[in-house]
Amino acid sequence: MYRNHYDSDITTFSPSGRIHQIEYAMEAVKQGGAAVALKSKKFAILVSLKRSSSDLGSYQKKVFQVDDHVGIAISGLTADARMLCNYMRNECSNYDYVYESKIRIERLVTKVADKHQLHTQGYGGRPYGVGLLVAGYDQLGAHIYQTCPSGNFYNYKSISIGSRSQSAKTYLEKYFEQFEDCSLEQLIVHGLRALRETIPNSDTGLNSKNVAIGIVGENQPFKIIEEENAQPYLNLLENEEPVEMQI
Amino acid sequence: MYRNHYDSDITTFSPSGRIHQIEYAMEAVKQGGAAVALKSKKFAILVSLKRSSSDLGSYQKKVFQVDDHVGIAISGLTADARMLCNYMRNECSNYDYVYESKIRIERLVTKVADKHQLHTQGYGGRPYGVGLLVAGYDQLGAHIYQTCPSGNFYNYKSISIGSRSQSAKTYLEKYFEQFEDCSLEQLIVHGLRALRETIPNSDTGLNSKNVAIGIVGENQPFKIIEEENAQPYLNLLENEEPVEMQI
Amino acid sequence: MYRNHYDSDITTFSPSGRIHQIEYAMEAVKQGGAAVALKSKKFAILVSLKRSSSDLGSYQKKVFQVDDHVGIAISGLTADARMLCNYMRNECSNYDYVYESKIRIERLVTKVADKHQLHTQGYGGRPYGVGLLVAGYDQLGAHIYQTCPSGNFYNYKSISIGSRSQSAKTYLEKYFEQFEDCSLEQLIVHGLRALRETIPNSDTGLNSKNVAIGIVGENQPFKIIEEENAQPYLNLLENEEPVEMQI
Amino acid sequence: MYRNHYDSDITTFSPSGRIHQIEYAMEAVKQGGAAVALKSKKFAILVSLKRSSSDLGSYQKKVFQVDDHVGIAISGLTADARMLCNYMRNECSNYDYVYESKIRIERLVTKVADKHQLHTQGYGGRPYGVGLLVAGYDQLGAHIYQTCPSGNFYNYKSISIGSRSQSAKTYLEKYFEQFEDCSLEQLIVHGLRALRETIPNSDTGLNSKNVAIGIVGENQPFKIIEEENAQPYLNLLENEEPVEMQI
Amino acid sequence: MYRNHYDSDITTFSPSGRIHQIEYAMEAVKQGGAAVALKSKKFAILVSLKRSSSDLGSYQKKVFQVDDHVGIAISGLTADARMLCNYMRNECSNYDYVYESKIRIERLVTKVADKHQLHTQGYGGRPYGVGLLVAGYDQLGAHIYQTCPSGNFYNYKSISIGSRSQSAKTYLEKYFEQFEDCSLEQLIVHGLRALRETIPNSDTGLNSKNVAIGIVGENQPFKIIEEENAQPYLNLLENEEPVEMQI
Amino acid sequence: MYRNHYDSDITTFSPSGRIHQIEYAMEAVKQGGAAVALKSKKFAILVSLKRSSSDLGSYQKKVFQVDDHVGIAISGLTADARMLCNYMRNECSNYDYVYESKIRIERLVTKVADKHQLHTQGYGGRPYGVGLLVAGYDQLGAHIYQTCPSGNFYNYKSISIGSRSQSAKTYLEKYFEQFEDCSLEQLIVHGLRALRETIPNSDTGLNSKNVAIGIVGENQPFKIIEEENAQPYLNLLENEEPVEMQI
Amino acid sequence: MYRNHYDSDITTFSPSGRIHQIEYAMEAVKQGGAAVALKSKKFAILVSLKRSSSDLGSYQKKVFQVDDHVGIAISGLTADARMLCNYMRNECSNYDYVYESKIRIERLVTKVADKHQLHTQGYGGRPYGVGLLVAGYDQLGAHIYQTCPSGNFYNYKSISIGSRSQSAKTYLEKYFEQFEDCSLEQLIVHGLRALRETIPNSDTGLNSKNVAIGIVGENQPFKIIEEENAQPYLNLLENEEPVEMQI
Repeated sequence: MYRNHYDSDITTFSPSGRIHQIEYAMEAVKQGGAAVALKSKKFAILVSLKRSSSDLGSYQKKVFQVDDHVGIAISGLTADARMLCNYMRNECSNYDYVYESKIRIERLVTKVADKHQLHTQGYGGRPYGVGLLVAGYDQLGAHIYQTCPSGNFYNYKSISIGSRSQSAKTYLEKYFEQFEDCSLEQLIVHGLRALRETIPNSDTGLNSKNVAIGIVGENQPFKIIEEENAQPYLNLLENEEPVEMQI
Repeated sequence: MYRNHYDSDITTFSPSGRIHQIEYAMEAVKQGGAAVALKSKKFAILVSLKRSSSDLGSYQKKVFQVDDHVGIAISGLTADARMLCNYMRNECSNYDYVYESKIRIERLVTKVADKHQLHTQGYGGRPYGVGLLVAGYDQLGAHIYQTCPSGNFYNYKSISIGSRSQSAKTYLEKYFEQFEDCSLEQLIVHGLRALRETIPNSDTGLNSKNVAIGIVGENQPFKIIEEENAQPYLNLLENEEPVEMQI
Repeated sequence: MYRNHYDSDITTFSPSGRIHQIEYAMEAVKQGGAAVALKSKKFAILVSLKRSSSDLGSYQKKVFQVDDHVGIAISGLTADARMLCNYMRNECSNYDYVYESKIRIERLVTKVADKHQLHTQGYGGRPYGVGLLVAGYDQLGAHIYQTCPSGNFYNYKSISIGSRSQSAKTYLEKYFEQFEDCSLEQLIVHGLRALRETIPNSDTGLNSKNVAIGIVGENQPFKIIEEENAQPYLNLLENEEPVEMQI
Repeated sequence: MYRNHYDSDITTFSPSGRIHQIEYAMEAVKQGGAAVALKSKKFAILVSLKRSSSDLGSYQKKVFQVDDHVGIAISGLTADARMLCNYMRNECSNYDYVYESKIRIERLVTKVADKHQLHTQGYGGRPYGVGLLVAGYDQLGAHIYQTCPSGNFYNYKSISIGSRSQSAKTYLEKYFEQFEDCSLEQLIVHGLRALRETIPNSDTGLNSKNVAIGIVGENQPFKIIEEENAQPYLNLLENEEPVEMQI
Repeated sequence: MYRNHYDSDITTFSPSGRIHQIEYAMEAVKQGGAAVALKSKKFAILVSLKRSSSDLGSYQKKVFQVDDHVGIAISGLTADARMLCNYMRNECSNYDYVYESKIRIERLVTKVADKHQLHTQGYGGRPYGVGLLVAGYDQLGAHIYQTCPSGNFYNYKSISIGSRSQSAKTYLEKYFEQFEDCSLEQLIVHGLRALRETIPNSDTGLNSKNVAIGIVGENQPFKIIEEENAQPYLNLLENEEPVEMQI
Repeated sequence: MYRNHYDSDITTFSPSGRIHQIEYAMEAVKQGGAAVALKSKKFAILVSLKRSSSDLGSYQKKVFQVDDHVGIAISGLTADARMLCNYMRNECSNYDYVYESKIRIERLVTKVADKHQLHTQGYGGRPYGVGLLVAGYDQLGAHIYQTCPSGNFYNYKSISIGSRSQSAKTYLEKYFEQFEDCSLEQLIVHGLRALRETIPNSDTGLNSKNVAIGIVGENQPFKIIEEENAQPYLNLLENEEPVEMQI
Repeated sequence: MYRNHYDSDITTFSPSGRIHQIEYAMEAVKQGGAAVALKSKKFAILVSLKRSSSDLGSYQKKVFQVDDHVGIAISGLTADARMLCNYMRNECSNYDYVYESKIRIERLVTKVADKHQLHTQGYGGRPYGVGLLVAGYDQLGAHIYQTCPSGNFYNYKSISIGSRSQSAKTYLEKYFEQFEDCSLEQLIVHGLRALRETIPNSDTGLNSKNVAIGIVGENQPFKIIEEENAQPYLNLLENEEPVEMQI
């Protein structure tokens, strides 16, 4: 039953130099609902699949605004994500207060990744069991970042995390060279098509209930499009042949 | 005897990315007395089954007022719930003091859920072994939320937690589309009927001793209806055919 | 030898959502000497069986005055009880100092129960291994409460805790409907008769040495009746047929 | 080898509600040298058997003065006892300083027992492995108390603790009704006779080297009688028939 | 499965005087991407192989500027490296602020190595799982240092760390005597050739995407050359025969 | 391999009321070099066997001056002893500063024994693995005390601790009645003869290298006699028949 | 695999009174590079063998200046040694600042040994895995001390620590009586010859790369002789027959 005795403590290296608890926390990210992030020259967007335990409740939020120029999509432990989102909001408003300008996206991501890292050294009890996709826009353009429980972060052109995200990645890898000059609408359609890849065939697919779209870009403060506002984009999607067919 | 060695410490992830102690704490919620929450446009109500160990004692309180515009029903460890209720009351009065207005329900729920979350990272020894149903009314209307030991919270139209709550949920799923335009009285009757579903047939059923009803809404400060005050609603219920029969 | 590995740490939930250490602490209460509490409209009384290890010592105190309007009987670890009694006394005198009035019984009980609860989350090392019966009288009338190591507390008309308390409860359940209008003397006799039920037949029964009676009520500050002062009540008892016979 | 896994941690209850580490600490008391305490109306005395590892050293002190009106005899870990004695001395002089009167014996005993108790909840690493016999005289008369590692304390007419103390208790139970009106000299002789019961026949018995007598009472500040000063009392003892013979 | 029981705690020596957790942390360094450092009289350079998980993302940064006169290349846990890099930046600017001059490279390296060391004594939970190559230039000339998780640091003429770094070392040992008088361009080509040795034959080799070059020296503030700026140097490399062939 | 599971933690009592870690620390005392202490009416002396690992080094100090009127000989962990010696020196000079007189020996010994005791309750990690022989002279005369890792201390006429100290004790028990009226010279010779008993026959015996003598007494500040100054006393010893022969 | 269960915790005594973790830390000293210390009347010197992992790096420093009148050679964990060296430097400059004179060598050594000792009681996580040879000169003459992980320190005429140091000790024991009147040059040659004994025959022997010499004495501030400066002394050595031959 014991795989080894190096894997239950965040402060223990295995003989091969790995810290298993970090890897296990990253496993929690893979269990979460899928999220997709992509960007053109002028826009960065997040597309996320919301889950609901029953018809009685609204769907769980997966996309959050952090500031006017940045938002996140999450996969993993929602409550942990909320903590990190609060932290990012504080950092944004502190920066704003001190420098009277918006914090640069890379700087903000570094800060939240440092917070991830501290939790891999035994502060705060355990690593955060959540990964973030950060979409933002600053004077350097549109940005997509991913953070991990390990404290690593990555700069992406487009990426997907969460359950069955490999299928979305396959889609993104096929089309990402087209994204740079896409309009916002085209970008959203690409995001929705990538997200649709993560849904098992037996499921009902994307609809205005289970999709949340976060957009940010030039002259476009971060905005979440969901419920009826998401329907027009879903309509665009439905008029196409399924992607599976195209391939 | 050992199921695995990842499940006894709140700060340990299992290889599949789960934190078993959080899941075990959620199990405590399922053992508690059932509670039902539902809302119409103008009202949110809580209906809860009180338990008593013997005839000698009064029944254990399961519905608590937090503030004029919000109350909770609990399931799980009662003493833990009392701590969280105190915390919520403080937050309400602090907010009131600072902003001279009532705290919004979602904000209050986020705060208490953050408190849940902290206890999943090793602060405070262990997760709270209790789930809350929060019913409130603010300028955005009536709200029903559920909080979990994990720190997650959910927005519901109607929901049930606790022992045998699945039966109540089945009832709610069948009728919840009618709730929005219900009168307060109709809403209470629906709540009682849903709660009745959670009682094993061998039990004596609902009566003015074991039922507590919390109501809040437009021009209706949070109020707990129990003992003789609950009888009129129970009378309405008894004049109907049992729900089991209807189906 | 190991029953399971979830039962030796107060901060660990078992897979079924239980915290075994709390349950084990409640076991300590069951080992203590029996105590009975009951109330009429105007009086609340405590009747307790004192134990002595030998003829050389006086009997261990089991009933304590907290304030003029409230007292406790204990079952379990006496030294833990003393800590809680000190805490209650402090709370009473603090309240008195700040508000210039007596603390309400329910409020006092909530405070001491909160202290119980904190110890179930790892503060203070371990749960208190003691249960309290609280008898008090305030502007709302006479009150009987029981507190548990879990931090739960219950409001009772009459109750018994400690060793063989089930026999006393059986007595109380039979007669409690008569208590409300009893005179103080009648109430004490009922308490003594209930307490007598908890004594094994081979024992010598109740006497002025092993009985302590705490009384409080309208125009009756909390007072402990023991030794020779208890004899008149015991005389009343002895003139009756044994309760066992009546049944 | 493991008796159970509940017995090595002071903060763990066994399934039967016991805290084994407290019981094991009480075992340390039983291993210590015997001590006897008894009182008349006007006097409280301590009689203690001192041990010596060899002829080279003086005998280990077992009776200590705390203040003019109170002293202790100890059984168990001597170094732990010294800590508690220091604590009692501080409490006495603090009380004296604040109230300009002697602290009441019961109050002093409660304080030191509370200190015992704190160590049963994980403060200070482990319970004190020592029991105290406290003899004092205040405006309420002469007092004998015993404290335990558990934090319990008992009020006795006369008592014995430590190795083979059961034999002394048997003596005390036989004669204690005579003590109340004894002269100081008679009381000391009773104490010595009780102490003599705890000595195995193969030993050399009581002598001025191995006996320490602590006395306190009306117009008699606490005083330790040992070495040559104890001889007159031993002479009284030797002129009698051995107690074993009398029975 | 257990190799021994001395290897899971950073504060435990094995019977042979080793601290296994330090060694395991050094193993993490060996898993990281390779990095090469070398120096001439006037220049110190870092050449590092960047990794990317997919085409979607930019390559992970492996070379970082610390100050105008010093930079680092890393191998091991990237997030840990970021912490150390931040620490070094702070030390540089603090020194600058206090002394109004640049910190000497050896002093800076000693400080960061001391930080490594503290983490081998249980501060900060675990050792840093990262090794640094430090390249700097001060009034004493160009310097190359390596730091280890153990807190050791080494002064090198040229060195390589990370995955398959042994092959690079073999190259460096063959040619290092020529480095001292190399031009910056020649030095970079040597660095690239050494780095190329660490790439498995099946890989695509060095290109402007996966190479980062850090340079610093006389009149040359630390500068990172990557992407298209690295191409000219790669072109120089490609015009040669592969080094494997030469040997 | 496990003797029992109560013996590796200083805060755990065994079922028989023992704290094994204290006993094991006392074992460390028995492994140290032998030391002997004895006193006459006017003098207290320490005689100690120094050990040396090789000819290259001086012998390890075993006798230390604490103040003008008191010194110690040690057996056990030398580094622990140094800590305690520092503590005693501080206590002496603090007392001197406050009261402008020398601290009484018993008071000083009580203080250092209290420090021993604290370490048996988990403060400071582990008990001190050292025993002290304290020789001092104050207005009450000459004193010999022994302290133990347990925090116990003993008042002796003469005593020996450390390796093979039983042989020295046998000598002391035979002759100690003569010590009281000995001259300083005679006392030293007795001390040396007792110490000689602890040396295995195969060893080279006492010499000016391996012996240290500490003396203190009336008009004799504490002084250490070693090296050539010890030779005259050794000469006195050598002119006698060996003690073994005498018996 | 487990040798015993007393050997993995620095605060645990074994039943024979040993603290295994201290002994294991001392094992780390034996693994380090050899160092030799010796002294004449006027000089104390350190001779140390430096190690290098490859031709690419400079040799690891093994001799460090602490102050003008004192320096150290180390064997064991280099990073730990650096911490202790820093501590000694601070102590020297603090003393200098307060007393305006150089700290005495014994006092300095006592301070650093006390720091060693603290780490054997659980402060700072683990013992320092390093031994120091301290060479200094003060108004009492030249001094050689050795410190150990245990907190013990020894005063030597000459000594060697580290890998294969026994061979050097054999040399030193043979010749140390000549050292006292040696010139500095002769002393260095003796030191080099002793150090040469620690080198396996298969190695290349002493050379200006792998030798570091620290000297201090009358009118000679502490100075490290290495690289080309060491060659003249090595030349003196090479003109002799090998010591092995002489014996």
